[in-house]
Amino acid sequence: MFPKLLNQFSQDMETVLANILPEPTGPQKKIMQAMHYALLGGGKRLRPFLMVEAAKLFAPLDKGVWLAASALECVHVYSLIHDDLPCMDDDDLRRGKPSLHKAYDEAMAVLAGDALLSLAFEIMAKDEIHDDPNIRLDLISSLAHASGTHGMIGGQVIDIYADKNVYDESLITQLQALKTGALIRYALVSGAKLGGGNDQDIENLSKYAQALGLAFQIRDDILDIEGDSEKMGKKTQKDESHGKATFISHYGLEKAKSKAHELGKQAKAAISTYGQKADVLSECVDFVLNRQK
Amino acid sequence: MFPKLLNQFSQDMETVLANILPEPTGPQKKIMQAMHYALLGGGKRLRPFLMVEAAKLFAPLDKGVWLAASALECVHVYSLIHDDLPCMDDDDLRRGKPSLHKAYDEAMAVLAGDALLSLAFEIMAKDEIHDDPNIRLDLISSLAHASGTHGMIGGQVIDIYADKNVYDESLITQLQALKTGALIRYALVSGAKLGGGNDQDIENLSKYAQALGLAFQIRDDILDIEGDSEKMGKKTQKDESHGKATFISHYGLEKAKSKAHELGKQAKAAISTYGQKADVLSECVDFVLNRQK
Repeated sequence: MFPKLLNQFSQDMETVLANILPEPTGPQKKIMQAMHYALLGGGKRLRPFLMVEAAKLFAPLDKGVWLAASALECVHVYSLIHDDLPCMDDDDLRRGKPSLHKAYDEAMAVLAGDALLSLAFEIMAKDEIHDDPNIRLDLISSLAHASGTHGMIGGQVIDIYADKNVYDESLITQLQALKTGALIRYALVSGAKLGGGNDQDIENLSKYAQALGLAFQIRDDILDIEGDSEKMGKKTQKDESHGKATFISHYGLEKAKSKAHELGKQAKAAISTYGQKADVLSECVDFVLNRQK
Repeated sequence: MFPKLLNQFSQDMETVLANILPEPTGPQKKIMQAMHYALLGGGKRLRPFLMVEAAKLFAPLDKGVWLAASALECVHVYSLIHDDLPCMDDDDLRRGKPSLHKAYDEAMAVLAGDALLSLAFEIMAKDEIHDDPNIRLDLISSLAHASGTHGMIGGQVIDIYADKNVYDESLITQLQALKTGALIRYALVSGAKLGGGNDQDIENLSKYAQALGLAFQIRDDILDIEGDSEKMGKKTQKDESHGKATFISHYGLEKAKSKAHELGKQAKAAISTYGQKADVLSECVDFVLNRQK
């Protein structure tokens, strides 16, 4: 049931994403083709899904939420493109296709990532996102923050540069809260803002997001060890060979699984106040904990 | 006189730039140090200078213009960091210092560039930029546009990928109008908006910017041939060895010089309506045409 729902969403999102991309014309059309290649045709679209579901808790959906969700996906995909570069994680495969620097080249991967980040902010400033300009400014400011040195980029920096000998539970949690958690939290909190949720709603969804984000990351670490690289469309067994500090290298596999389970319960508790209206977000927790890719 | 003025501005700007950067603390402090290294200590600060001078035509300066100018400089510096990467222009020297990927490494150069771009939008969304939220949204939207595939990044893509055999005057002009012109135009047009200029003012400054931007680029091409790499703090003689299509490869040196001179006249004419109030912008044209670095 839930996978079907997410699959339908991802098809609808594909149409929105195709519409926001610049038409590949003019002497610079090659980069527009590269952006199409990277943004379209695959991906769970989990972050935009969470944004849309959070907004639906508080108001009927309008076009602005879909548009904001597409901007968020641009930021996520830009981060994947840059993370895959040879100077970073050096991944040749992404979503079952050659990663962008393999399909094109490294310069194009840097530039197409840059362009998707710029495009995200251009979209988020549009009138259609929300009638209230102050909400749009808030979404822009918090997107920049969640993507920057105190968010996603900060997490990537810790992942690459922090001394592996000083890793403890708190640093691993901080790393993941920044690297994957910041955009997941952004998705849910911004969805609540777009839907008209109040401060308490934002607090609830923020708690849900923090637990879900960590559970998502632990599942990622588990899949890196137990997963099927063909199903996942990317390499596995990377963390250990790169000497990466993960929840599993710290806790061991079994304790990591039970921690993920515990986080799942916390996530569901944070949205229990919304009853059946939050069933989809609740099912999403189980999906994240059991996903095979 | 003018160089002294620009020098004083660049010192004042340095203080503003130092204040907008995140304090290097926490486990991700290395990237904050890298951002300091790249953003501070050098550079003509021409784009922020043009923004501030355009705003001054219409209103007394306030803190918001300086802040917006610092965001613009973040975008310019991010583009230099990424352009210097081995997979792009492969420049080891920038502003007389090792470029960021030499002083740190390539991963940090990608990430610090990304972080400066995100930071620019975070700053531009701040209340202090301008009282009117719609002006801030306009500045954000047009900054994203001027940086993206229809602006600076588009120009870089043409520069790297366009078939050198199809270059004609129109393509070289388009390349430069995007690669360096888009941000210079953004500086002047946004300055006018922040200062409260009307549509005609924006039109005047846009014309000034387009002529000045092309003149700036032609001077860049001339300096690449005639300039002193020590004074300039970067390598020269790069264009010919990289087989780049420039105004000089197209026109020859003498005709390029007279074209730059002609563009300078056009730039001055576009702002003649402001009389003495625009003296500094007028002197800036001569500075751009005669600069040695």
